[in-house]
Amino acid sequence: MSENLHPRLPSYADVVSAAERLAEVAVRTPLVACPKLDALTGGRIFLKPEPLQRTGSFKFRGAYNRISRLGPEQKGGGVVACSSGNHAQGVAAAATLLGMPSVIVMPRDAPAMKRARTIAFGGEVVQYERGVEDRDAIAAAIAAERGAVFVPPYDDFHIIAGQGTVGLEIAQDMESLGLAPDVVIANASGGGLVSGIALAVKQRFPSVRVLTAEPAGFDDHARSFRAGHRERNQQASGSICDALMAATPGRLTFEISSRLVGEGVSASDEEVARAVAFAFEEMKIVVEPGGAVALAAVLAGRLDLKGKTAAIVLSGGNVDPGTFAECLRVAGRA
Amino acid sequence: MSENLHPRLPSYADVVSAAERLAEVAVRTPLVACPKLDALTGGRIFLKPEPLQRTGSFKFRGAYNRISRLGPEQKGGGVVACSSGNHAQGVAAAATLLGMPSVIVMPRDAPAMKRARTIAFGGEVVQYERGVEDRDAIAAAIAAERGAVFVPPYDDFHIIAGQGTVGLEIAQDMESLGLAPDVVIANASGGGLVSGIALAVKQRFPSVRVLTAEPAGFDDHARSFRAGHRERNQQASGSICDALMAATPGRLTFEISSRLVGEGVSASDEEVARAVAFAFEEMKIVVEPGGAVALAAVLAGRLDLKGKTAAIVLSGGNVDPGTFAECLRVAGRA
Repeated sequence: MSENLHPRLPSYADVVSAAERLAEVAVRTPLVACPKLDALTGGRIFLKPEPLQRTGSFKFRGAYNRISRLGPEQKGGGVVACSSGNHAQGVAAAATLLGMPSVIVMPRDAPAMKRARTIAFGGEVVQYERGVEDRDAIAAAIAAERGAVFVPPYDDFHIIAGQGTVGLEIAQDMESLGLAPDVVIANASGGGLVSGIALAVKQRFPSVRVLTAEPAGFDDHARSFRAGHRERNQQASGSICDALMAATPGRLTFEISSRLVGEGVSASDEEVARAVAFAFEEMKIVVEPGGAVALAAVLAGRLDLKGKTAAIVLSGGNVDPGTFAECLRVAGRA
Repeated sequence: MSENLHPRLPSYADVVSAAERLAEVAVRTPLVACPKLDALTGGRIFLKPEPLQRTGSFKFRGAYNRISRLGPEQKGGGVVACSSGNHAQGVAAAATLLGMPSVIVMPRDAPAMKRARTIAFGGEVVQYERGVEDRDAIAAAIAAERGAVFVPPYDDFHIIAGQGTVGLEIAQDMESLGLAPDVVIANASGGGLVSGIALAVKQRFPSVRVLTAEPAGFDDHARSFRAGHRERNQQASGSICDALMAATPGRLTFEISSRLVGEGVSASDEEVARAVAFAFEEMKIVVEPGGAVALAAVLAGRLDLKGKTAAIVLSGGNVDPGTFAECLRVAGRA
């Protein structure tokens, strides 16, 4: 019970606890130097490639941390989640590893690869019509019917702490290299990743700047930071970044990010496609559009990194071959 | 002078020396866990992704180590090399970093991306007609004309030692994880990579098995190991693995690999294409066909890894978008 209605925000200690929980199951993704980005920016740039994470995105971290904390009395009915893809795979894989069933409520227009992989990770997919049916009502009905626990995508104590392990690993690896990051930039949708990262890296490097990266037209974090309260996006669709479609920052995540992040940049669809192509050609990492916004913003020169040490989080790589090829075409590479 | 005609084979100490030389310029590529491969093989499988290396393949390591050892009197005329792509980029990038010009003699049918990238890294490309013109004669003429030093692709003391840093990093990272590798498998063409790796990992883990992986029909290493002397391939072309077309193991590399490697596996073009697609979908790493043969052999079940700790070297990722898309199509993913 107390796990579901956590009265307080996660802290650095909760991120460390999540890291212990994840040690045996998550991939410890590397911090990779990128000489090409060093040359382009004049800084010392590192990538944190979460496409290499189990399920192909950072989402596994929070999902596993959350689901592993359920009490024995909550486990029988399994879990239910709403997601168009990356949270879906994270929840399905985490539940399967923990011996629990999972149901994912997924829009019918979700990328085919994400649906197929969710099923492959052991999830049961229930589809709905975006803009017509109410996914939350569908999830609530499934939860009531099966006694399943709802796993939210970002606005949750243990989800935020789990995503924070991305930042903890960045901080640890920077320390091992004898470096201190000046800038960490991460893609934001509901803000679970960036707020978790900020909890970790600001503890170890208090003067580091942490920024959000969002698709142009979906920059609810950047506008909310400026307004001092949570703003909503005008549009609910129309970006190639299918992973970054949350309408507004989360309540808990914004309590953290408004304090520890406070600034953001954005990138257009075309800039994002160019970043996907750049990652293919220059980094040899498969990044999905929604995972490449921070990189796109850096490549577009939206952030002066000259002389700075920076980490760019690539948050996911679950992209259909067709979309991937289209990004290469847009960038003039194919 | 003594550098050009090294009478002895490189040793473990020479690999350590190469690692010091490379510390500030090469990417220390990570050793990445792959839960999906663990599940498929029943082993504990790690990837060593050299596509993340500067220039997109391991070739930079040997080229930089070799060129950085040239005396001041040898530097003025620059360097010349023959390569269809990965050695070309490694030599061009290393020479540029060391302030020297480079000429690469490249077949006209080399992948377009490899040619373009060689030029981008600062190399001057001289094209020739494969099977009609003699590339070695062209390179010799350029060397004589410009006073350029020839940089061989694999059969060289410092090249082998440089490629060996791949193995040194595998050994160090395994030790950090408290693990001992049972198997290390690496793609082989001339054998510089695999012999260098063997020098390093056999020193730290004497009982580790090191294996070559080669395209079917181009398994000169495996046949040479069985014969006890260097065998040649029947074909000189006809594989999608453009990076693995050496006709026979090198003289120096075979002196090492016949002693420290001694066994090899192979994979067909279709298996290689499936491995490229697997790396796209399940690992999110861009691997070129010639970089994916070891992975292909493991996926094809050619090696029993049940209960074993293994490292698979992905040796390069310089693949044209068209070839990449074709691999996904062959594998039924697009």
